[in-house]
Amino acid sequence: MPAAPDTDIDARIRAIGDDRIHGASELARECLRIAADCAQQETAASTQELLDGLRRRGAQLAVTRPSMAAPHNLVRAWLDRLPGFAVLELPAARAAAATAAQAMIERSHGALDALATHASNLVANAQTIITHSLSSTVVEVLARLRTSSVHIIVTESRPLCEGRQLARRLSEWGMAATLITDAALGLYAAKAELALVGADSLLVDGSLVNKIGTYPLALAARDCGIPFYVCCETFKQRTPDMPPLVLEEMDIAELGAPDLPGVKVSNVYFDITPARLISAWANEHGVVGRDIA
Amino acid sequence: MPAAPDTDIDARIRAIGDDRIHGASELARECLRIAADCAQQETAASTQELLDGLRRRGAQLAVTRPSMAAPHNLVRAWLDRLPGFAVLELPAARAAAATAAQAMIERSHGALDALATHASNLVANAQTIITHSLSSTVVEVLARLRTSSVHIIVTESRPLCEGRQLARRLSEWGMAATLITDAALGLYAAKAELALVGADSLLVDGSLVNKIGTYPLALAARDCGIPFYVCCETFKQRTPDMPPLVLEEMDIAELGAPDLPGVKVSNVYFDITPARLISAWANEHGVVGRDIA
Repeated sequence: MPAAPDTDIDARIRAIGDDRIHGASELARECLRIAADCAQQETAASTQELLDGLRRRGAQLAVTRPSMAAPHNLVRAWLDRLPGFAVLELPAARAAAATAAQAMIERSHGALDALATHASNLVANAQTIITHSLSSTVVEVLARLRTSSVHIIVTESRPLCEGRQLARRLSEWGMAATLITDAALGLYAAKAELALVGADSLLVDGSLVNKIGTYPLALAARDCGIPFYVCCETFKQRTPDMPPLVLEEMDIAELGAPDLPGVKVSNVYFDITPARLISAWANEHGVVGRDIA
Repeated sequence: MPAAPDTDIDARIRAIGDDRIHGASELARECLRIAADCAQQETAASTQELLDGLRRRGAQLAVTRPSMAAPHNLVRAWLDRLPGFAVLELPAARAAAATAAQAMIERSHGALDALATHASNLVANAQTIITHSLSSTVVEVLARLRTSSVHIIVTESRPLCEGRQLARRLSEWGMAATLITDAALGLYAAKAELALVGADSLLVDGSLVNKIGTYPLALAARDCGIPFYVCCETFKQRTPDMPPLVLEEMDIAELGAPDLPGVKVSNVYFDITPARLISAWANEHGVVGRDIA
């Protein structure tokens, strides 16, 4: 067991909370990797003590990102497995809990793979697609279009401009792309045949929580008469038992704005797109939506 | 006469074309200041030679900013005065042409003053106003609200973030403001009672050409059920005789994006907001619009 494992685990949990770059699926999988490591490292003299410790860690992990349902749902699904390991000896319980976390990670990868197939079929005929921010799910969908001649319009996605990372990925794949400011999403929606985004969460009413700027893109898509598609796994759906949604606000220093008396700088990372603006939703089971092209 | 006056004038005309910060009204007035200086400095042996030279300068000035109608209209109005000076001696013709340009500048200031009165009356009861970019016209309207308790939501307005200048001005006036990213205009439109923007041009059909991001703001205003007001002088209206509208694209280095094979960086500065999204238009004569609050 490494020295002071808790400090390492605590630091990794804090890093998830502070992360500005990775999407909800990736962070959810990192939560499960931490859960697996806790299963192996948590100080415990008995199976019961281990499971109590893992429940505390799970509760911590489930609330790391209040704008994202995926860490909550995948960690909850893992926690639900723990009582079944109470009959095992301590080493076997450790192994079972770690294996269960690993299985959740694999389930997540499998869901991503299935949804990427459905979503890429949905958008396969488009010549020009507009997207916003950097979604690992959208990346997976676009990876399937690598050999096509599709042109991708990418917003820079302030404040950290992670859209540039998506542009870099597309460039490495030899795909054509146009990088625009977030303010230009209205002008450029008119040049695209469809809009495609990932999700940080889906709300109970079908609304979408995603990187701020998604809502204006959905409005522009509707106004320009192009479909607005969301691709995300079902475990990104919030359930009524979850703690209230918080639209996370990050460090205002990221905006690089001057400090002015009476001027509040706001750096909210997420906005909410009403379900009525979503044309269809691709998930691991297929495509659902009322106006599928 | 200063040495090489043409070089100075040419540099000032180029500066108008390169300007990324000032709005259409300010640039139109700078065009007229240049016209007045040309009247005094243009090399000419006769009144006819002077007027021919000024017509050439006027034609140059009128097309400095293809996204903006104001320089074109004000310079055209000045050019229309020139034939009347053909009967004057050269020194008197110089003085008359310079005075005419000065009069156009004063007319512009007078129009701004009148429209600021109309627009500030229109928005006087709002507790929270959202605006986009830096419009000298909007600044003039907000100046009239200095003693009110209104809260202004200001977008940073990439790429040069001139929204910060507006925030600074509001701070100096002791007004409360919130500075947000352009992507946040959807989330924040819902927190405002109305949206107020200036104009680079109004098209013949009543559509609005303004800093890119204005169109998504108008969409968000409509979706959130708040009015979207435009304030601009009538000389910002394009007429059918003008050269075709060009949505100017500026130096892509302003985005600070990496240079990637196959990735085009776009830095278009303007977008078009359809007339159907404009609730009312405040100009120097009053407020026109179909759903005035």
